[in-house]
Amino acid sequence: MKKQVKISNAVIKRLPRYRRYLKELHKKGVDKISSNEFSRLIGYTASQIRQDLNNFGGFGQQGYGYSVDGLYKEISAILGLDRKYKMVIMGAGNLGQAIANHTYYYKTGFVVDSIFEVNPRLIGIKINDIEVRDYEDLVEYVEENEIDIGVICTTKEVAQEVADKLCFAGVKGIWNFAPVDIEIPSHVAVENVHLSDGLHSLAYHINRNQEEAKTK
Amino acid sequence: MKKQVKISNAVIKRLPRYRRYLKELHKKGVDKISSNEFSRLIGYTASQIRQDLNNFGGFGQQGYGYSVDGLYKEISAILGLDRKYKMVIMGAGNLGQAIANHTYYYKTGFVVDSIFEVNPRLIGIKINDIEVRDYEDLVEYVEENEIDIGVICTTKEVAQEVADKLCFAGVKGIWNFAPVDIEIPSHVAVENVHLSDGLHSLAYHINRNQEEAKTK
Repeated sequence: MKKQVKISNAVIKRLPRYRRYLKELHKKGVDKISSNEFSRLIGYTASQIRQDLNNFGGFGQQGYGYSVDGLYKEISAILGLDRKYKMVIMGAGNLGQAIANHTYYYKTGFVVDSIFEVNPRLIGIKINDIEVRDYEDLVEYVEENEIDIGVICTTKEVAQEVADKLCFAGVKGIWNFAPVDIEIPSHVAVENVHLSDGLHSLAYHINRNQEEAKTK
Repeated sequence: MKKQVKISNAVIKRLPRYRRYLKELHKKGVDKISSNEFSRLIGYTASQIRQDLNNFGGFGQQGYGYSVDGLYKEISAILGLDRKYKMVIMGAGNLGQAIANHTYYYKTGFVVDSIFEVNPRLIGIKINDIEVRDYEDLVEYVEENEIDIGVICTTKEVAQEVADKLCFAGVKGIWNFAPVDIEIPSHVAVENVHLSDGLHSLAYHINRNQEEAKTK
């Protein structure tokens, strides 16, 4: 695996977005893109793009642009998307099921191995061919099957307890959908998803547009 | 309604996070917080916090700190969370159902009015007391019921078509969960959710932690 450089979290958060746009460009048959063209497409300034990509030694050439496929592959490798990850979903409610059913994750190397539940009526059934297992068996299962990521799809109230158990069992990362920031040891990575944050930004823009329409 | 100032999108994206932390502080009985204390808690620098909040005229007082409840209310008003929004969910699959069942949105003023579907077996049923309606009736329904927001929980393939219909019907904002950036007229606000972006950042941090552990 290639040696990784320490990069600011803000840049890391932008890389998946660069990668998505590069993938779409590649699909459309685009081979090269300049930072200016990329800027118009992705909505960051050209200087921001050059600065971000310079973090990795710079893939562009003056007056030539970035190689779409080359940059896509480099970013994929930097993010660690050139390997597989085994995930367990905590909670077989609608959200847990939505993630279990989302084929996208499998295609991109994030394999849902199992779903864990406390509800005895759900334990033993299969969702999208994935077995729903007893929460009581979590620690042993994670250890034996070398699970990388725990996806928390529980209520806010039990999320921290579930996170503690996942960390104890030895997962390397937690993807948390419960609407609370969970606390974990520093050797475990965490991504807290706050869906409502996006909704609240959306509310701002709706009001802003309405204000602008009034003053026209 | 208070007159709104034009603020950069990056700041707007941070405001919901400030608001969440302020809410938690208020719940814990904290009245005042300095930018330094807030910085340790939320993970932005104190200078970033002061700069962000200065956009709104500045609510803090030198040597005194921010009023937790006051700032919470101000940010809520800036985001437009002092009013109600009527939402329709497009698609009654797992994700659509997860959102329909999530009581959080109702409590915070985002009311799910209806769910729209093309599958005739689902049309007419109720999910969390919300009626699933025929996609064919969308335009008329949105117009008559003054729907503010369309939540796209469809596949990537039909997302743009659904977005076009929502815009035609007159929604003011679109919250898009389909894994594709949709294009909409400038008078409609859009928030594209890319769940996998967070997963890809998580992958980076997992690998980074493992690299660090090896070199120790």
